[in-house]
Amino acid sequence: MHAIGIDIGGTKIAGAVVDELGTIIRSERVPTPAGDPQLLEDSVATMIESLSTDASIVAVGVAAAGFIDAAQSTVYYAPNINWRNEPFREKLEARVGTAVVVDNDANAAGWAEFRFGAGRMVSDMVMLTIGTGVGGAIVAGDRLFRGGFGAGAELGHLRIVPEGIACGCGQRGCLEQYGSGRALLRTANEIADAGGIGVGLANARAEHGALDGPVVAALIRAGDPGALAALHELGQWLGPAAASLSAVLDPQRFVFGGGVAAAGELLLGPVREAYLEHLPARGYHPEPDFVIAELVNDAGVVGAADLARVWVDEHA
Amino acid sequence: MHAIGIDIGGTKIAGAVVDELGTIIRSERVPTPAGDPQLLEDSVATMIESLSTDASIVAVGVAAAGFIDAAQSTVYYAPNINWRNEPFREKLEARVGTAVVVDNDANAAGWAEFRFGAGRMVSDMVMLTIGTGVGGAIVAGDRLFRGGFGAGAELGHLRIVPEGIACGCGQRGCLEQYGSGRALLRTANEIADAGGIGVGLANARAEHGALDGPVVAALIRAGDPGALAALHELGQWLGPAAASLSAVLDPQRFVFGGGVAAAGELLLGPVREAYLEHLPARGYHPEPDFVIAELVNDAGVVGAADLARVWVDEHA
Repeated sequence: MHAIGIDIGGTKIAGAVVDELGTIIRSERVPTPAGDPQLLEDSVATMIESLSTDASIVAVGVAAAGFIDAAQSTVYYAPNINWRNEPFREKLEARVGTAVVVDNDANAAGWAEFRFGAGRMVSDMVMLTIGTGVGGAIVAGDRLFRGGFGAGAELGHLRIVPEGIACGCGQRGCLEQYGSGRALLRTANEIADAGGIGVGLANARAEHGALDGPVVAALIRAGDPGALAALHELGQWLGPAAASLSAVLDPQRFVFGGGVAAAGELLLGPVREAYLEHLPARGYHPEPDFVIAELVNDAGVVGAADLARVWVDEHA
Repeated sequence: MHAIGIDIGGTKIAGAVVDELGTIIRSERVPTPAGDPQLLEDSVATMIESLSTDASIVAVGVAAAGFIDAAQSTVYYAPNINWRNEPFREKLEARVGTAVVVDNDANAAGWAEFRFGAGRMVSDMVMLTIGTGVGGAIVAGDRLFRGGFGAGAELGHLRIVPEGIACGCGQRGCLEQYGSGRALLRTANEIADAGGIGVGLANARAEHGALDGPVVAALIRAGDPGALAALHELGQWLGPAAASLSAVLDPQRFVFGGGVAAAGELLLGPVREAYLEHLPARGYHPEPDFVIAELVNDAGVVGAADLARVWVDEHA
C-alpha cells in the first residue's frame, strides 16, 4: 500500500511515493509558485497525477506551513500561499480522485520521526524543529496531537519572556525569538561585534559581513569558542522551554530537528544541561531523553504520506 | 453501574459512591492521617469497605496530589503522604478485592468537569484550578491527557518569568507563583501596604493583620477597587499563560476552578482580555471560550470514580 506525500515549502514543492515502511519509492520537486494559489493548486495536482502512474496509491497527504483544521481538511491560514479558510482537501480530491488529507508541515515531520525515525521507540514525544524559526510537533499515546481546533503544537510560540523580543505572530517573547536559527545568528553577530571569546566569528564577520547560517555552522563544527558560546546560549533558552513543555506534556523523548540540529551533541549537550537545571520537581518523576532527528530532508513528504495512510485506515 | 471515588486531600479523605451520570449516591469523610502512610492506607481501605455495602461497585478510583505513573498504578511521589514509588493500586486491590486505579487529583477534577460539568460540550479542554496553588488538567480528543510518564498537565509549573519568584518545585518563575490564590493574597497585601486605590484592603489589613482568602474574597464580592485590582493583576498573568497553553494544546475551552474561581466573571473578564491580547497569530485560527467550573467540591471524588469506570470499560 503506497501513499503520496506532498510538502509545500516556501521555495519548493516536494512530492514522493512512500511505502508502508517510510521508504521513498519515487520523488519529484518543482519550485513553489508563491503568491498564486491557483497555480499552486495546479502544480500540486499535476505532481500527484505524475506520481500516481506507477503505483497503487491509497491516499495523498499534503503538508504546508500554517494552521490546518482538526479534520485535516481546511487551511485556516498558510502564510506562504496566501490562503485563508481554503478548503484544499475538497478541491484537490475533486481533481485527483484519491483521498486527500492536509496537515501542518511540522506535524508531518514529527510524525515521520515518530513512525520511522528518532521517535520510533516511544509512545509520547515532542519534536522541536530548529530552523529559521522553531516548529513543533507532539505525539501522545502513539497519536499525532493536533489540539481541539487543529492549531496546537505551535511550540515556537510559547511565551518565555514577558514583553520580550517581537515575534512574527504579533506577540513578544516567543520561544522562536530565543531558540531559533535566527536567534543563533543574532547572538553570533553580537559576539563577533563584541570581540572577546575566540576570533572565528569576528574574522568571519570581517571577511563576509553579517554572519549567515553556513558560516556559523562551519565555525561550530570547527570548535570555535565564540560559535560554541552562541550555541550554548541557544541551549540556555531551549532547555528551560523544554522543561516547561515537560510540565505540560511529559514526553518520554525530545527530538530536535531542523538545520541547527545538524550540530548534534554540540546542541543537545547545552539543551539537556539547562533542561535538567530547570525541570520542575526534578527527581520526583521519570525524565525524558534528548535525541537528534534522523529523517531530515525527507521528513515532510514521508510524514504527510503516512498521515494520509493512517487516515484511510481509520476511515475505511 | 456504580464506582467509588476517593479523594485524598491534605486535611481530609473524601469518598463517594457515584453513578454513571456523575451523581453522588452516598458519601463519607474522615481526617487525613498525614505523615502515616500505613494508617492512611487503612483509612482508605476502611472507607472503601464501608461504601461498598449498599451498591454494586465495579471499580474504585483514588485521587491524590502528586505524580502518578501512566498506568494509573504507582505513585511516584505524593507530597502530602510521604509516598515515594508507592504501588498503591496493587496494595489496595489486594485488600479490597475490586479493580483500583490511582490518578492525580487535578486530573480527576478536570475529568469530572469534562464528563459532567463545564467541559461536557467540547472534546478538548484545559482546566486550571486556582486554589492555594495552580493545578492543571488536559482533556484531548475526549480523553484525559496524562503524558508519556503520567506526570503531565502540571500547568502550574509552566515557567512564565525567567528566574522569577521561587517555587516549591525547586524552580523559579512558575505560573503557580503568579496566578494562584497565594499570589492574589500577596498582591492584595502589597496594595493594602501601599495604600492608594480604595480603602477596603487597607482597612481589612488594619483590622485583621495579614489578609487571608475569605477576607479578600469578600472584598472582591463587595466590589472593592483594591481587591479587584489584585484580581486584575492575577488575570494579567493567567491570560498570557493561557495563550501559551493555546499555542501548545489549542483547547476549545478553558475551565477555571478552585477557590479563586468563585469570583466568576470578575476573574474570567481580566483573564480573557489578557489572553486575547497575548494570543499568537490571533485572528488566524479559532479561539476557545472561558468558563467557570461547575462541580467545585465534588469534582475530585466524581472524577476519580468515573476514571475508574472508564478504566474497567476499556480493560473488560
